[in-house]
Amino acid sequence: MESLTFGQYSLVYNAFSFTFATMAATTLFLWLGRSQVGPAYKTALTISGLVCAIAAYHYFRIFESWEGAYVVEGGVVAASNIAFNDAYRYVDWLLTVPLLLVELILVMRLSQVETVSKSLKLGGAAALMIVLGYPGEIATDITTRVIWGTLSSIPFVYIVWQLFAGLGASINSQPENVRGLVKKARLLTFASWGFYPIVYMIPYTSLSGSNVTVGVQVGYTIADLIAKAGVGVLVYMIAVRKSQAEYGDAYGKPVNV
Amino acid sequence: MESLTFGQYSLVYNAFSFTFATMAATTLFLWLGRSQVGPAYKTALTISGLVCAIAAYHYFRIFESWEGAYVVEGGVVAASNIAFNDAYRYVDWLLTVPLLLVELILVMRLSQVETVSKSLKLGGAAALMIVLGYPGEIATDITTRVIWGTLSSIPFVYIVWQLFAGLGASINSQPENVRGLVKKARLLTFASWGFYPIVYMIPYTSLSGSNVTVGVQVGYTIADLIAKAGVGVLVYMIAVRKSQAEYGDAYGKPVNV
Repeated sequence: MESLTFGQYSLVYNAFSFTFATMAATTLFLWLGRSQVGPAYKTALTISGLVCAIAAYHYFRIFESWEGAYVVEGGVVAASNIAFNDAYRYVDWLLTVPLLLVELILVMRLSQVETVSKSLKLGGAAALMIVLGYPGEIATDITTRVIWGTLSSIPFVYIVWQLFAGLGASINSQPENVRGLVKKARLLTFASWGFYPIVYMIPYTSLSGSNVTVGVQVGYTIADLIAKAGVGVLVYMIAVRKSQAEYGDAYGKPVNV
Repeated sequence: MESLTFGQYSLVYNAFSFTFATMAATTLFLWLGRSQVGPAYKTALTISGLVCAIAAYHYFRIFESWEGAYVVEGGVVAASNIAFNDAYRYVDWLLTVPLLLVELILVMRLSQVETVSKSLKLGGAAALMIVLGYPGEIATDITTRVIWGTLSSIPFVYIVWQLFAGLGASINSQPENVRGLVKKARLLTFASWGFYPIVYMIPYTSLSGSNVTVGVQVGYTIADLIAKAGVGVLVYMIAVRKSQAEYGDAYGKPVNV
C-alpha cells in the first residue's frame, strides 16, 4: 500500500469514526421513533434503522481495518503488511442498498401487492448493481474497472427510471403535506447514489496514489451518510406526518400547524 | 508530547472516566423518560439522549486515546509514541452541537414549519462554527489559532442572537410554569457555550506545556457536561411539565401544584 501523510491518514480515520457514530446514533433515533408512528409505518422505521445499524457495523470494521493497515509512529505513516479491506463496503451495500429502496416503498404505504412487487423488482436490481460493480472495484487495471462499472450502471439506470417513472404516480397519491418530503427523499436517494459512480471513476482520472485512496474513502463515506442517515431521517419525518394525518392526535399533532 | 506529572495525568484520566459514566447515565435517564411525556415531546427526549450517547461514545474513545498516549511506570509519566487524538472532540461536536439546538427547539413545540426552519438555520450555523474552529485547534502557531477562532465566532454570535432575539417571542408563548425553565435552558446553553471559546483561548495565555494540555482537556470536559447532561435534564423537566399541562393526569401531575 502506498504511504500517506499524517493529515491524509487522520482525515480518513476521523471520517470513519464520525460515520460509525452517526450511523449508530441514527439507528437508535429511528428505532426509538417506532413508538411515535402508526402501525402501518413501523416497518419502514425498522428497516431504515436496520440500514444504519448494518452500516454502523461495517464502518466499525472498516475503521479497525484502516487502523491495522498502517503503522503511525512519531507522525510518520507507513503501510503495515496487512492490506486495508475494502470488501466490507460491498458486503454492506449488498444488504443495505436493496433495503434503502424497500424503506422508501414502505413509507409510501402502497397496496400490499404493489409493495411486494416493487420491493422485489427494485431490491433485485439494486443487488445486481452491487454484484456487478465489485469485480471492477478490486481490479488493478482500468479496462476491467470500466467494463464492470458499465455493466453495473445498467441496473442503476433501471432503478432511477423506476424511481421517477414507476413511483411518480404513487407519489401524487400521497397526502399533500408529505408529497414534498417524499420527492425530497427520492431526490436525495438519486443524488447520493449518483455520487457513487463518480467516486468509482476517481481512478480513471489523473489523480494517483494516496490521493485516490483518500478521495475514494472520503467520497464513499459522504455518499453513505447522505443515502442512509439523511434519507432515514426524511423517512422518519414522512412517517410521523402521515401518522398524524391518518391516526390523529395520539401521534402528537403539533398545536398550531 | 510534553510530559505530565502523575497528578496531572490522573486528573485528566479520571475526568474522562467520570464524563463517560455521566453521559451514559444521562442517556439512559432521558430515554427511559420518553414513556413519561406526551407524544409531542418524545422526539425532544430521543434527541437529548442521543446527544449524551454520542458524547459517551467519544469520551470512551478519548479516554482510550489518553491512556495510549502515555506510559506510566513507577509514578513517572512519559509520552508514548502514539499521539493523543483530539479530533474526537470535533467529530463529536459536529454531530452533537447542532442536535443540542434541535432539542431546545423541539421541546418548545413550535409549528412544523417553524421547527424545521429554525432547526436547519441554527443547526447549520452550529456545524459551520465547529468546522471553522478545527483548523485553529490543530494549528501549532497562535496566529492561525486566532484567525480560525475568530471566523468560528461569527456563526457563534449568530446563534446567540437567534437564541435570544429569534426564540424570545416563542418563549413568551410557552405556558407560564415552564417559561422560567426554558429561559434557564437557553441561559445554560449560552453560558456553557461561552466556556468553549475561553478554553480555546488558553494557549493564548502565559500558561504553557502540560498546563495548557490539562487546562484544555478539563475545561472542555466541564463545558460538555453542562451543555449536554445539564441541558438534557432541563429539557426533560420542561417536557414533563408541559406534558402534564397539555395531556393531563396520565402524565403524573404532582398532588399539590
